[in-house]
Amino acid sequence: MLHKPNVTQSIVTQDLAHLVVTTRWDDIPQPVRHQAKRSFMNFFAVALAGCRTSPVEIALRSLAEFSGGSRATVVGRSERIDALSAAFLNAAGANVFDFCDTHVRTVIHPTAPVAPALLALAEMRRVSGPDLLTAFVLGQEVQARIALAISPAHYDRGWHITSTCGVFGAVAGSGKLLALDESRMVSALGTAATQSAGLCECLGTPAKSVSVGNAARNGLWSALLAEKGFEGPPEPLAGVQGFYNALSGPTDLALVTAGLGESWELMHTSYKPYPCGFVIHPVLDCVLDWRRDNPRAVVEKVVVRGNPLLQLRADRPNVSTGRESQVSVQHAAAAALVTGKAGVDQFTDACVNDPAVQALRRKVGVEVDPAFSTVAVAVDVTAGGKTYNLSQAAARGSDQNPMSDQDLEDKLRTSAAGWDPRHDIAPLIDAVWTLETSPDVSKLASLVVPCG
Amino acid sequence: MLHKPNVTQSIVTQDLAHLVVTTRWDDIPQPVRHQAKRSFMNFFAVALAGCRTSPVEIALRSLAEFSGGSRATVVGRSERIDALSAAFLNAAGANVFDFCDTHVRTVIHPTAPVAPALLALAEMRRVSGPDLLTAFVLGQEVQARIALAISPAHYDRGWHITSTCGVFGAVAGSGKLLALDESRMVSALGTAATQSAGLCECLGTPAKSVSVGNAARNGLWSALLAEKGFEGPPEPLAGVQGFYNALSGPTDLALVTAGLGESWELMHTSYKPYPCGFVIHPVLDCVLDWRRDNPRAVVEKVVVRGNPLLQLRADRPNVSTGRESQVSVQHAAAAALVTGKAGVDQFTDACVNDPAVQALRRKVGVEVDPAFSTVAVAVDVTAGGKTYNLSQAAARGSDQNPMSDQDLEDKLRTSAAGWDPRHDIAPLIDAVWTLETSPDVSKLASLVVPCG
Repeated sequence: MLHKPNVTQSIVTQDLAHLVVTTRWDDIPQPVRHQAKRSFMNFFAVALAGCRTSPVEIALRSLAEFSGGSRATVVGRSERIDALSAAFLNAAGANVFDFCDTHVRTVIHPTAPVAPALLALAEMRRVSGPDLLTAFVLGQEVQARIALAISPAHYDRGWHITSTCGVFGAVAGSGKLLALDESRMVSALGTAATQSAGLCECLGTPAKSVSVGNAARNGLWSALLAEKGFEGPPEPLAGVQGFYNALSGPTDLALVTAGLGESWELMHTSYKPYPCGFVIHPVLDCVLDWRRDNPRAVVEKVVVRGNPLLQLRADRPNVSTGRESQVSVQHAAAAALVTGKAGVDQFTDACVNDPAVQALRRKVGVEVDPAFSTVAVAVDVTAGGKTYNLSQAAARGSDQNPMSDQDLEDKLRTSAAGWDPRHDIAPLIDAVWTLETSPDVSKLASLVVPCG
Repeated sequence: MLHKPNVTQSIVTQDLAHLVVTTRWDDIPQPVRHQAKRSFMNFFAVALAGCRTSPVEIALRSLAEFSGGSRATVVGRSERIDALSAAFLNAAGANVFDFCDTHVRTVIHPTAPVAPALLALAEMRRVSGPDLLTAFVLGQEVQARIALAISPAHYDRGWHITSTCGVFGAVAGSGKLLALDESRMVSALGTAATQSAGLCECLGTPAKSVSVGNAARNGLWSALLAEKGFEGPPEPLAGVQGFYNALSGPTDLALVTAGLGESWELMHTSYKPYPCGFVIHPVLDCVLDWRRDNPRAVVEKVVVRGNPLLQLRADRPNVSTGRESQVSVQHAAAAALVTGKAGVDQFTDACVNDPAVQALRRKVGVEVDPAFSTVAVAVDVTAGGKTYNLSQAAARGSDQNPMSDQDLEDKLRTSAAGWDPRHDIAPLIDAVWTLETSPDVSKLASLVVPCG
């Protein structure tokens, strides 16, 4: 009860609410619309990869005990569950391998919290393809804008930015689909702000999935509450006891609103070809290409040279779990050289404990050279007494070398094949590429559930 | 995915988990057991006061759309709902007027997040009275200990400490009832930590109730997930990317563990006789006593002298809503003098807009004197040309002048009469005072639901 008087320092929430409420499908440039579809393609690929993992299994079993009412789809699964829980589970599943997309400037994984909230809502209310894409683009914009003002200090402090800012993306997109007016959108953003949570300390454990799932669930719920007239404070973000003061260090509020509605942060999303830390990606580009050309060569030694960040984040010669292996360049290189692949199966406990991978892991060295960008590396592979000098100037999936539409389709095909090789994934791929002509997207998520 | 290596600075989570797992009913001193019962008495009083407020109504209608499975009681209401939602609603309702108890050193309202989680669980599993009280005491201890290390900086930064630390009380108490082992208790605390949220900016709006409700709901859910084997990090609190680094400024971890299991923070709980900011309480003591002795005197002027905190927090001559009026000493004094009471009805929009109260509010002045403690005041009431010099050295309900058992019973009786004057509240009062002999508390909460 006792608190300081609310002296609002600055106003940004209203500006974001205004953007969300007033932006129409016609206002969104074609490249942004297309990028939104690419994000959905990638979303389904990663959601299928994650839908049977232990965090999703346990959370689903637990939530099912409390669930009722009309049911929504859990991607890749036969169970149906209430919309809030579906939003939770699909977000948790999409992010569980950190195989999802990245908003590079903030390191948010931006689609995992937003798409699941919108897909769950699309099973409750009639939503067209353009409605879905518009809400998605706006959700992306709001969460990225809020996050830009506090990056990188917020993440460095221990905040899992995908969770803490994802709730804003979920509420903005959901609020758009619910056609909230500006006042209710501000209330919805406030109810979301007071639920913003998530700690990097939990990365690498199932607990991480809870904050990501909550971002989608609580964002959706905040919008639904606001629709019923549930109110929040006028400036939950920049108010003196609001989000920015509590959750951040230095804050540059100008980044929230500069050019708002003119440029689109979704265009700064990148997609991952491999389910591991992005500093490892150029290494995998090199060794996978080399292995394809040299399928039978016996590798004696590998030396990786890259940006200091590669060493800081991924120089981890000894790993014991699949999760740890996602941030081990030694493991990733060894597994790729042994199996010729770098998919979800290469970052499992089983692959970590494979004797051939273990043996090769010990032969991978890491050297640092600040001349390399974070997406470039050189790799020297010695095999049969010969040393091959490999290099990658810009990793596949980086801003400079983005995954093509075909790459994203292939990522979904590969993921779907790993999930159920008999399932025909073509209808989903088609549905995503033609979203802008769909009058009703309520069946989109259920295009990837087990048959029968 | 990318993150710094986890270098644990210090270990406190394990110590708290150890306390929770190993403490038995027999270890809890008699005065602490009794205080636990007092807290439940106070809880039911404030939960009945809040159960029909708009935040509870709207949240209940929204959650009911998604709810299923076995049902739990919402205090004071005929609706039954899933256990997670019941925990949410009962916590939100108990805290909505900030009429609940206070852990003075941290300003946590400690019972609202904890009791609802335990009561919901008691409707799912068999729980005895001693089980309930033991879990409650441990939940109180854990949340207070975690909060002590960061008070007052954490709250001053904008964190609603009842919400951010309440989730730890809820998870610790729930985990105790589920008989989690130490490893699972640590996991449960981690899953709770990554859900710790709540902003003071939302105080005075319905959005506040969401973070308080979530503290109970998410604490309970974290324990249920841990029971199913859901894991978290080993040191979610003191880890370098954990709770303390993210959510606090200066942290004194020694306060978490010093004398753990020897002293009990529950003993530092105080209960409120009036539903408003505690700095206003000694003023109400004075004017209510005076009004009782001078029922017909026409007040011409009131001057309040108190600690600077009184001015800082409650010098608010102009108020327009019931919520604002809870932090206005001018309104509180005027309403008490006009009506002779200071209950929930005196802090409503209707009372704020009562012309007699409005007129008297303008005649209340506030003066500061650092010689007064925060629980002491002097009040000069001028009526009929005569000035009465009133004073209170220690407000009722403060540490120095605690509410008696009878006061707490009366608080519940008054609240119950306001909720339903025909309801016989005696069975609940009896049940609370005899909790330590109850073999099964599953029916406790349902002693206050509407008949028929």
